[in-house]
Amino acid sequence: MNDYKTLRQEAFEANMEIPKRGLAIYTWGNVSAFDKTAGVFAIKPSGVSYETLTADSIVVVDLEGKTVWGKLRPSSDTETHRILYRAFPGIGGITHTHSTFATARAQAARGVPVFGTTHADHGAEEIPCTGFLSKEAVESGYERETGTLIVSTFKATGKNPAHMQMVLVAGHGPFTWGADAAQSVYHAAVLEEICKMAYITLQINPGTSPLPARIINKHWERKHGPSSYYGQK
Amino acid sequence: MNDYKTLRQEAFEANMEIPKRGLAIYTWGNVSAFDKTAGVFAIKPSGVSYETLTADSIVVVDLEGKTVWGKLRPSSDTETHRILYRAFPGIGGITHTHSTFATARAQAARGVPVFGTTHADHGAEEIPCTGFLSKEAVESGYERETGTLIVSTFKATGKNPAHMQMVLVAGHGPFTWGADAAQSVYHAAVLEEICKMAYITLQINPGTSPLPARIINKHWERKHGPSSYYGQK
Amino acid sequence: MNDYKTLRQEAFEANMEIPKRGLAIYTWGNVSAFDKTAGVFAIKPSGVSYETLTADSIVVVDLEGKTVWGKLRPSSDTETHRILYRAFPGIGGITHTHSTFATARAQAARGVPVFGTTHADHGAEEIPCTGFLSKEAVESGYERETGTLIVSTFKATGKNPAHMQMVLVAGHGPFTWGADAAQSVYHAAVLEEICKMAYITLQINPGTSPLPARIINKHWERKHGPSSYYGQK
Amino acid sequence: MNDYKTLRQEAFEANMEIPKRGLAIYTWGNVSAFDKTAGVFAIKPSGVSYETLTADSIVVVDLEGKTVWGKLRPSSDTETHRILYRAFPGIGGITHTHSTFATARAQAARGVPVFGTTHADHGAEEIPCTGFLSKEAVESGYERETGTLIVSTFKATGKNPAHMQMVLVAGHGPFTWGADAAQSVYHAAVLEEICKMAYITLQINPGTSPLPARIINKHWERKHGPSSYYGQK
Repeated sequence: MNDYKTLRQEAFEANMEIPKRGLAIYTWGNVSAFDKTAGVFAIKPSGVSYETLTADSIVVVDLEGKTVWGKLRPSSDTETHRILYRAFPGIGGITHTHSTFATARAQAARGVPVFGTTHADHGAEEIPCTGFLSKEAVESGYERETGTLIVSTFKATGKNPAHMQMVLVAGHGPFTWGADAAQSVYHAAVLEEICKMAYITLQINPGTSPLPARIINKHWERKHGPSSYYGQK
Repeated sequence: MNDYKTLRQEAFEANMEIPKRGLAIYTWGNVSAFDKTAGVFAIKPSGVSYETLTADSIVVVDLEGKTVWGKLRPSSDTETHRILYRAFPGIGGITHTHSTFATARAQAARGVPVFGTTHADHGAEEIPCTGFLSKEAVESGYERETGTLIVSTFKATGKNPAHMQMVLVAGHGPFTWGADAAQSVYHAAVLEEICKMAYITLQINPGTSPLPARIINKHWERKHGPSSYYGQK
Repeated sequence: MNDYKTLRQEAFEANMEIPKRGLAIYTWGNVSAFDKTAGVFAIKPSGVSYETLTADSIVVVDLEGKTVWGKLRPSSDTETHRILYRAFPGIGGITHTHSTFATARAQAARGVPVFGTTHADHGAEEIPCTGFLSKEAVESGYERETGTLIVSTFKATGKNPAHMQMVLVAGHGPFTWGADAAQSVYHAAVLEEICKMAYITLQINPGTSPLPARIINKHWERKHGPSSYYGQK
Repeated sequence: MNDYKTLRQEAFEANMEIPKRGLAIYTWGNVSAFDKTAGVFAIKPSGVSYETLTADSIVVVDLEGKTVWGKLRPSSDTETHRILYRAFPGIGGITHTHSTFATARAQAARGVPVFGTTHADHGAEEIPCTGFLSKEAVESGYERETGTLIVSTFKATGKNPAHMQMVLVAGHGPFTWGADAAQSVYHAAVLEEICKMAYITLQINPGTSPLPARIINKHWERKHGPSSYYGQK
């Protein structure tokens, strides 16, 4: 029988980045790691503190939402993760936090324009903010519908989840993803820093214009384009 | 003779969370733990730094305000704790801090509307802020009257102290409570984070609307309602 | 020959509180300890980092400004300390930092009204901010005149340096004092926290009123009045 | 064959100050150390995290942009460093970070007026902010042109890079330099603190006037003038 040891270890290590990077306090936040071949993802159990979390307490869930390994109840946000894995092909990890500046911006229900190269290095477009779920959506399955809301926000604005890997859910907080669990939590830390910088920028000058497109595109291309030259690959 | 060792240890450990969580500097802040059966609470001694605090320096006081164990003078805020234990049935711990954002909001004398799910997870309503004590109240027993002011604020606004476990005392700072001392200090850390997020949210958009009631209630119910499904219980 | 070992040790330990409490980076800031009987004070040497500071590198200076012990050059702010020891009877230590919020408020050239009990516990009145030194004062002896400016600010506003132990020098930063060096650096940390809280308070509501006098006086009296009951004394 | 061991060690140690001083997260930021005699500089490799960085992974590049030691690809910002070493005589180290407040101010595209002595101690004039690169400049060699933009900004405003050793590149972030790599990263930390203080100062009073010239000049001269008396030299 498969015990998903590697996948659980990956999820465990990525979850431990949340307190290390100061992205949430106590039990808040969760990271999952996806195994595309097996069609399952490993996720933090609900309400367990990072101080007592181990790879053995990580829960493995399939794409129908059924727990296939582990005795604890999975994160209450598991349904949101599940919907995103089904809808966004190619992603291998998802992170949800309550990091301070990203959550505050989600509470103000505003996306994040590209004000600088720190942002452009990680996305050549505004980071979107969803609307609020309807009464029907909340009652029919709140966490699943949160996933559906993210997916429909991307569809409505023509965004490609392979290029924009961050979103703010209005009134709630940030969700981020990536090629694996580690990259998804990296994006959570980047999003928090981008939101903090955007906050200060707009306090300095509420009329700050977005970065010119020529510079946005240059920074995106040098890291992610076909002729990228950042890093060692 | 009862030396209240377990109760003092509980109070000691909860008090040590104050510096660990960055909720106050030097000697500021205090936590108490209540033993309902014995009718006594264990509380931090006045003006003792966290670096030198031990379980043996914790003081035990009864509901008449008489010290029943310990040689040090109890916290100068002891009377406030005493009034709350008498008035709010079922609470087992109380925390007072001077955490930065909660204290600043208390200085601005404003309650905290529910701007997001971080808040709704811990209370489905505005966190209240009291008014200022009258000259007569200050002179007749300042700390006792601070407790009375909190109680009357809850009565006047119809709040249930089992559901809303945080308050700001105008011009002073936060008081929080919970099922035990550990939960009361957890609520102190949560309140500081909620106040920081509310601050940033209103700086981004001073006209931010509170979270829709359907989402507030959903988050409260999933953690605290009869069909709650957050955590491992 | 007197080597002022105890006094230098006191100054050394108080200086090390500056990096520990996050009140300045690199070599910025300085604390001195005064021996009233000997008429000398021990002070940080100029431009030495806290990582390499020892009690043996502390310099001892008399009230005429002459170095009586030590081979290093004393802090460039030594003359300011000297003037304050001469003018303010009873103080035993002085601290100067560049802590972020106190320095920013000094740059904005504004005193700090009493917005809450955190402030009132340490002073029952506005923390004053000086004006700017004249060209003549700058040229005739900048650091000495900075001391004189603080003294004249206190005289002009009728403040008692035994009751208000903090000041902001416009465009420069905070100076604080106390019964000994340790208390002066405690006041530096308190002032930074008060300035941060005042900043947030006024961002929340620019029209925030000062705390009612009845509560200011109560907090001051319970810590410092003839019938004080805070702490263990 | 010269392996530039001393130069690489200098660059390595200065790069490690970036995470230690909280000036960037993950792989962001880079420091170089210049050997004027050899006409080469040692610089951080591109995309390598500080946790795995060693002196042996540092890359050495000559003033034509050719790698003369090391197997890794140098920082993507290498061309900016190269242009600055060619244009600004006497500098021995350069630092680029994405520190929060300096980057936010660069995003708002505003220089930093001298609001206090913390600034004046490190520069007797406004810290300049460049304009945005043209489409032609971005396409012809973005990083080289960033260097050229800094140089032309200094020429246009008559600034001396030996006296003003900090600049904000609009929409991007800070570059700083100094007599050696260690001093360049010191200036990066100072710039972050100055930008944070300027931010808070202008939030307190948007109409804050710059520090009077008489005090600016005094602070600059006491640290850097012919009769300087700060420090132990």
